[in-house]
Amino acid sequence: MKELKKLYDRIVQQVNINLRELDFDVRPFVENLIDPEKMTKFYAFYGITPDHPLDLEFSHSGLAGSYFLGKCKVTNSLLYKSDIRGDELKREGSTFTFQNFSIPLTTDEVIDIRDSALIKTLVHNYSHDPETAERFFIRSTLAMQFANIHGSPMDGCFLGPFATVDLTTAHDSVIGRYSYIQAGEVHHLRIKPGTIWVNSPNNFNFYYRYKPEALQPYVHMEDGQPSGLLFDFIEEHQGAFQRVFNMVNLDVIDTIPASASLDRYAVILPKTTIAENVLVSQRAYLQNSALGKGANAQENCYIINSTLAGFDVTAHGAKLIEADLEENVFVGFNSFVRGTAESRVCIGQRCIIMPHTIIDIDEPLEIPPGHLVWGLIKNARDLQENSVSLTELTKIEKSFTRGRMHFEGNGAQFVKAFQDRIQHILEVNGAFYDEEHNNAGHAQKNQNLSLNTIQPFRFGEMEGLYPNMIIKL
Amino acid sequence: MKELKKLYDRIVQQVNINLRELDFDVRPFVENLIDPEKMTKFYAFYGITPDHPLDLEFSHSGLAGSYFLGKCKVTNSLLYKSDIRGDELKREGSTFTFQNFSIPLTTDEVIDIRDSALIKTLVHNYSHDPETAERFFIRSTLAMQFANIHGSPMDGCFLGPFATVDLTTAHDSVIGRYSYIQAGEVHHLRIKPGTIWVNSPNNFNFYYRYKPEALQPYVHMEDGQPSGLLFDFIEEHQGAFQRVFNMVNLDVIDTIPASASLDRYAVILPKTTIAENVLVSQRAYLQNSALGKGANAQENCYIINSTLAGFDVTAHGAKLIEADLEENVFVGFNSFVRGTAESRVCIGQRCIIMPHTIIDIDEPLEIPPGHLVWGLIKNARDLQENSVSLTELTKIEKSFTRGRMHFEGNGAQFVKAFQDRIQHILEVNGAFYDEEHNNAGHAQKNQNLSLNTIQPFRFGEMEGLYPNMIIKL
Repeated sequence: MKELKKLYDRIVQQVNINLRELDFDVRPFVENLIDPEKMTKFYAFYGITPDHPLDLEFSHSGLAGSYFLGKCKVTNSLLYKSDIRGDELKREGSTFTFQNFSIPLTTDEVIDIRDSALIKTLVHNYSHDPETAERFFIRSTLAMQFANIHGSPMDGCFLGPFATVDLTTAHDSVIGRYSYIQAGEVHHLRIKPGTIWVNSPNNFNFYYRYKPEALQPYVHMEDGQPSGLLFDFIEEHQGAFQRVFNMVNLDVIDTIPASASLDRYAVILPKTTIAENVLVSQRAYLQNSALGKGANAQENCYIINSTLAGFDVTAHGAKLIEADLEENVFVGFNSFVRGTAESRVCIGQRCIIMPHTIIDIDEPLEIPPGHLVWGLIKNARDLQENSVSLTELTKIEKSFTRGRMHFEGNGAQFVKAFQDRIQHILEVNGAFYDEEHNNAGHAQKNQNLSLNTIQPFRFGEMEGLYPNMIIKL
Repeated sequence: MKELKKLYDRIVQQVNINLRELDFDVRPFVENLIDPEKMTKFYAFYGITPDHPLDLEFSHSGLAGSYFLGKCKVTNSLLYKSDIRGDELKREGSTFTFQNFSIPLTTDEVIDIRDSALIKTLVHNYSHDPETAERFFIRSTLAMQFANIHGSPMDGCFLGPFATVDLTTAHDSVIGRYSYIQAGEVHHLRIKPGTIWVNSPNNFNFYYRYKPEALQPYVHMEDGQPSGLLFDFIEEHQGAFQRVFNMVNLDVIDTIPASASLDRYAVILPKTTIAENVLVSQRAYLQNSALGKGANAQENCYIINSTLAGFDVTAHGAKLIEADLEENVFVGFNSFVRGTAESRVCIGQRCIIMPHTIIDIDEPLEIPPGHLVWGLIKNARDLQENSVSLTELTKIEKSFTRGRMHFEGNGAQFVKAFQDRIQHILEVNGAFYDEEHNNAGHAQKNQNLSLNTIQPFRFGEMEGLYPNMIIKL
C-alpha cells in the first residue's frame, strides 16, 4: 500500500479514536475526499513577505494546492487546496492579554497541524486560547470542504462541509455541516448541522438552528458526498480558476489603486472596479462588481453583479450575487446572499449579516440600515422573523426570541463585541490606510508578497506526499 | 548594500586570500559574472528519483537556474545555471578502495559547496580523494563559465572559462581557461591557459599546451570578459534553450526507445534520431543528428548534423558539428569538433579524442581507427602532429614527444586507464543495458526522474538569494 493511503487511513482512525465517546464515525464521509491523482498533480505554494517570518516545516505530508503564509508546521497530514494563513499569528516579544491575564510571548506563534486532513479549509487568525498562546494546534482533525478554522485550536474534531469554528478551542467535537460556532472552548460536543451559536459565558448567548429540511437544498450529504446548491454554485464557477494563470488583470480592470491588492490566485472578471485600500484574497472570485474604498473579498468569496459602497467586509467564504451593500456592511463567514437581476438584495449601512446566513430571493429585498440578520431569508416576511435593529438589540438585558433565534444576556455587549471586531478586521486589512498615518494592513502589505511553489513526489511509494522540507529566512 | 552583493564580495575576497601566494587577483574576472537581475529571475530545480537520496541543504545562497541531484549542501555560495550532479556519489555501506587502502563509508557522500561562486559549472562524479571519501568539498572557489569540476574536491581555486579539473584534489590553485588537468592532487599551482595535463605519478605523464596565439581565437579574455569562438558558438544556439519548455519532443523525434532518456531541459531539434540506451543530459543540444545505441550526450554538449554509430561518449561540454563517429569513439570534456557540410570530420572506431581538443577544419578529415588525438587540428598535417595510434602508444616505455605534446612513462598503462574509464562511463550511463542483465544506468534510471523547482526571494534585502531550505525524503 502506498504511503499516502496509509497516512490517510491513519488520520481517519485517529479522528475516530478521538470521537469514540460521541459514537461518531467519520468513515462514511471520507470515501472520496482524497484523490491520489490530484494530490500528486497540484503544487503547493508559500508566501514570502518582509512582514512575516518565513518559517515552514513540512514532514510526511501531502500539501496539494495548499497555500502557506507565516510560521507553519505540518506533520503526518494531508492538505488539499487549503489556505494556512499565518499572517495574523502572535509575534515574539508581544503580550497576549486575556481577561486579567497578560502573557508575554517568547517565540513567534506557530500553526501546528498534525495527524489531520484538511480539504479546501481556511485556517486563519491566531489562537485565542490563553492556554496555548504560542501554538495554534490542529491535531487529529478532519475538516471537509470550505470549513473555516479561525483562531481556533482543535484536537480530535470533525468539521462538516462549510462548518466554521471561530475563536473557539475545540476538543473531541463534531461540528455539523454549515454550522458556525464561537464559544471560547468546547469539549465532546456534537453540533448539529445548520447551528449558529455565539456564546460568551456570563455575557451573551446567540442561538439559531436551520430547519433541517430548509437547509437541505443548500447543503446536504448524499451517500457520504456533500452536495446541494452551495456546492453547485461553486462548481459552476470553478472553470474560471483554471484560467487564473492565463489571465492578464489589466485587460479587465481599468485601474487598481496603489493602495489596493489583488491576489494572483484570485479570479477577476469584467467589468470589475477596485477602489483604494481594497483587499482581494486568493481564491476569491469577482465578476462585474464594484468594490468601494476599504472593502474586502476574503478567501473563497464570490462577488458577482454586486456593488460594495466601501468599508464592507465579505468574510471568508461569503457570497454576494446581485446585491448592493451600503457602507460598513459586514457579511459573515460562508453567508450566501443571492438576488436576481430583477430582484436585487439591498443592504443598508452598518448591517451585520451573521455568519452562515442564507438570503435567497426572487423578489426585491431591502434590509434597512443598522440591522442584525441571521438564518434563512427567502422574502420580506422571513426578514422580519430573522432580523432585529441593533438599536433594539442593544436594549436587551435578559433575553429575546424571534422566530427560531433565541438570545440571552446583554444585547449591548453582543453588539459592541461585533462592532469592535468588524472595526478590527477593517484595520488589519488596511481599509483605513493613508500615507500620513502609516497604518498599512494586508491590502498594502500583500503588495510585497511573492509566492514560491513546492512540489510533491510524482511516483513511487511516496507519490503525492511532499519531500520533508524546512524553509526559513 | 544588498545581501547578494555582500555575499559575492565576500566570496571574491575569500578566493583572493587563498590565492595570495600565487599573487593572483580574481577581481578583474568577476565584474559582470553575477547579474543580480538574473539571480532573482531564474528558478533552481532538483531531481527526485528512487535511485539517489533526496538530501539537500541550502543556506544563505543564490542558486539561479541551477540543478541538483543527490546529496548536496550549499552554504554562503552563489551558483548560476550550474549543474550539481550527485548521482555518482559514493553510498553508505560501500567501500572505497584506493591503492592499498580500503575505506568503509558510514554515510552517503555529500557534495559540500561553501563560500564559492560557480557560473555555468558542471560538478559531477565522486571525490576520488581518499583523504575525504565522504565529503566532496568545493570551498572558497570561483569557477567561470563551462568549467567542469569532476570528482575533484577543491579549496581556494580559480577556474577560468572552460577549465576542467578531473579526478584531482586542488588547493589554492589557478586553472587557466580551457585547461584540463587530471593529476591526483595539486597545491599552489598556476596552470597556464590551454594546458592539457594528465599525470599519474610513477605511471605516466601527458602534457600539451596550446600556443597562446592559436588558442586566442577560440577562448580568450577581453577586459575581464571571456570571449572567442567557443562563446560565440554557444551564444548562437542559446535561443533554442528558451524554447525548451514550449517544445513537444514528439514533433521532432519519431520514436524514442524505452531504454533511452532525454532530459526535459535538453534541446532536441529535427531531424534527430535516438537509438536504444542513449542518454541525453540537461542542457544538451541535438540537431539533425543520429545517436546510435548506447551513445550519450552529456551536459552542455552540442551535436549538430552529426552521426554517432553507437557506444560513443560525448563528455561534458563536448561539441560535434558535421562529424561522423564510428563505434566506441570517446570525445573528451569541452572538445570542439567542427567540420562543414562539404568537409566532414570522420572519426574511426575506438578513437580517443583527448579532453579539450579542438578540431576545426574546412577540408575533409579522416581520423583512422584506434588513435589518440589532442590539441589543435585544422588539417591533415596537424592531425599527423597531434595524434598517435593506440598500438604505437602502448609500446612506449619511457617517453615520447610529438609536436607540442610530451609523454613520459608507460604508454600501455595510459591507454588502459583511458579505455577502462570509457568502459566505466558507458556502463554507468546504461549503454549496455538489457533486460536480462538488469544493468540499468543513467539512461534507464533517469526515466524515473522528476524535477521540482524552488525559487528565490524576489524583493527586499535578500533579493536573489534563496530561503534557507532543508529538503529530504
